[in-house]
Amino acid sequence: MYPVIEWKEGAVVMLDQRQLPAVEKFIVHRNHLEVAKSIKEMVIRGAPAIGIAAAMGIALGVIGLRDDPNVKNPAYLDEKFKDIVAVITATRPTAVNLFWAATRMEKVFRENKTDFSRLQEKLIAAAIAMDKEDFAINRRIGENGQELLQSGYTVLTHCNAGALATGGYGTALGVIRAAREKGKDIKVIAGETRPYLQGARLTVWELQREQIPVTLIIDNAAGFVMKKGMVQAVIVGADRIAANGDTANKIGTYALAVLASYHGVPFYVAAPLSSIDLRTRDGDRIPIEERDADEVTQFCGQMTALPETRVFNPAFDITPASLITAIVTEEKVLHPPFATALASLKELRRK
Amino acid sequence: MYPVIEWKEGAVVMLDQRQLPAVEKFIVHRNHLEVAKSIKEMVIRGAPAIGIAAAMGIALGVIGLRDDPNVKNPAYLDEKFKDIVAVITATRPTAVNLFWAATRMEKVFRENKTDFSRLQEKLIAAAIAMDKEDFAINRRIGENGQELLQSGYTVLTHCNAGALATGGYGTALGVIRAAREKGKDIKVIAGETRPYLQGARLTVWELQREQIPVTLIIDNAAGFVMKKGMVQAVIVGADRIAANGDTANKIGTYALAVLASYHGVPFYVAAPLSSIDLRTRDGDRIPIEERDADEVTQFCGQMTALPETRVFNPAFDITPASLITAIVTEEKVLHPPFATALASLKELRRK
Repeated sequence: MYPVIEWKEGAVVMLDQRQLPAVEKFIVHRNHLEVAKSIKEMVIRGAPAIGIAAAMGIALGVIGLRDDPNVKNPAYLDEKFKDIVAVITATRPTAVNLFWAATRMEKVFRENKTDFSRLQEKLIAAAIAMDKEDFAINRRIGENGQELLQSGYTVLTHCNAGALATGGYGTALGVIRAAREKGKDIKVIAGETRPYLQGARLTVWELQREQIPVTLIIDNAAGFVMKKGMVQAVIVGADRIAANGDTANKIGTYALAVLASYHGVPFYVAAPLSSIDLRTRDGDRIPIEERDADEVTQFCGQMTALPETRVFNPAFDITPASLITAIVTEEKVLHPPFATALASLKELRRK
Repeated sequence: MYPVIEWKEGAVVMLDQRQLPAVEKFIVHRNHLEVAKSIKEMVIRGAPAIGIAAAMGIALGVIGLRDDPNVKNPAYLDEKFKDIVAVITATRPTAVNLFWAATRMEKVFRENKTDFSRLQEKLIAAAIAMDKEDFAINRRIGENGQELLQSGYTVLTHCNAGALATGGYGTALGVIRAAREKGKDIKVIAGETRPYLQGARLTVWELQREQIPVTLIIDNAAGFVMKKGMVQAVIVGADRIAANGDTANKIGTYALAVLASYHGVPFYVAAPLSSIDLRTRDGDRIPIEERDADEVTQFCGQMTALPETRVFNPAFDITPASLITAIVTEEKVLHPPFATALASLKELRRK
């Protein structure tokens, strides 16, 4: 497992992903406000990892109430808990895992709120369990998805749907890892993923640590490498999958899906069930986060465009189900029509 | 006209485009080696501007021989001239304007080489004329191309095919300028154009100086803005157009053309006849320059990926003729089939 996020001595420790690969620095969070800030500022990112951070952040928030004499008042505690959840879920609107994690923590809260001491323990245990569970889920996603990759394939991926985006191992990169563990010869092309460069900074770093062959390209070159026949599959993660299979993921994913379709390259989405949002009918209903202009007009304090520049900076886009070849989950690999396939997921129905 | 390049007191002065928009600095070149270096390192870029720089560089190279007693030896002078041209044309392989300019200067050389004093004058005059002529050509491209743009359009452009890429006014941006001069309400979306950010640094700078409304996006967002119906036309420049209409242009152009086709958005190429290379049959035969990895792994000295990262960094790609709606030249607007349309160009046949 990667040191992405860890519950340690009553605090939440996160690897500061903004500084990779130049610096491996950890940030210690002692309350839920700090966790919310780190989610918003992308110290931690990637839908599954954000879910874990949210759970741990909520646990921290409740622990922070331990010296508050009013916590024995149920209405007061309910109100405080609601506030904590609101702070955590107000950070990033697109990834559904944030809300999924909050819902799970709410359940733990309801079941244990009459005993504050037990409540703290249970919330911490639930958050830690979600981290461990995510790792196991990724392994199952990898195991299921590796069937789609043949030895000799070069796989194009976007952003970082790797160990750094999850409890470790990764979704899209988990599939690649699993295929390689089966002895398949798989190479990777990573798009750098402007503006935040998760591909260049995180995916390349992660794969290089394990000697998985990876070539970095600018996002602009994706069409060119597909046209040259250099790519046999595209695989990406997901921030939210709607009931019809439309998928929100890092901005640029949609363009990759159009290009893959144009070149006859299969386009795969790898994501845990926690990224599936059956209550959202289709992609048009997924909120798309827009981020600050200075992510585009500055780079490490250097000006890349004049400060007064008008910028449109959506952080995600929607890939319609029609452009997706298969969705890989920990339960099984789903094929079109995705509305039916998603509705039939056993584990999802049970939850 | 923009201060892109100027012949001034026996030297070639260029605006250092690498430092825009933060700094407006000029570099004075006193010999052809310095000019070649500046072309290679992208102090000046854009196919038409590179053509002008090449012509001025060749003139500088010949002037540099004036104190050489051997220049009266015709064989020696021929050899020296060949060397100068070789240095200039070895800089960037894709833009055909470089070779077109060299061919024009070779003609002036052949016609005047018996009188070294006149040779110098004629080469300087030819180079300056090419600069002025390019401006006039861009005006005609703009005049022809603006017919394609309706008032109310938002036009997506890539890289910088503007005043900074030409003798002033621009090809793709010239069309936008001309449409606005006709009183049409045209807005621009500029892709930032990694890795060198010509869109963010140059196109935005150029358009803002003239109060032309421009919104900057990361290249990754091009599919998204098209899907949202925010774009009514795409217009780009060209580094080389083959006899069948296949067009080499800045990396990412091909992906934009695929996306435009998928969304039913017209895709226009605006370029002077000097960018048309009828001797190159199709795009597969256009050499594609690959540039250094550190353009991708570093930004202004900041690391964006580990230094040992394997990078594939093609500077251009090929858009097949089948994805191009029209090619705008100074003679006329060409429509498919482009092989016939290109072969029928009167001015090109005359040259």
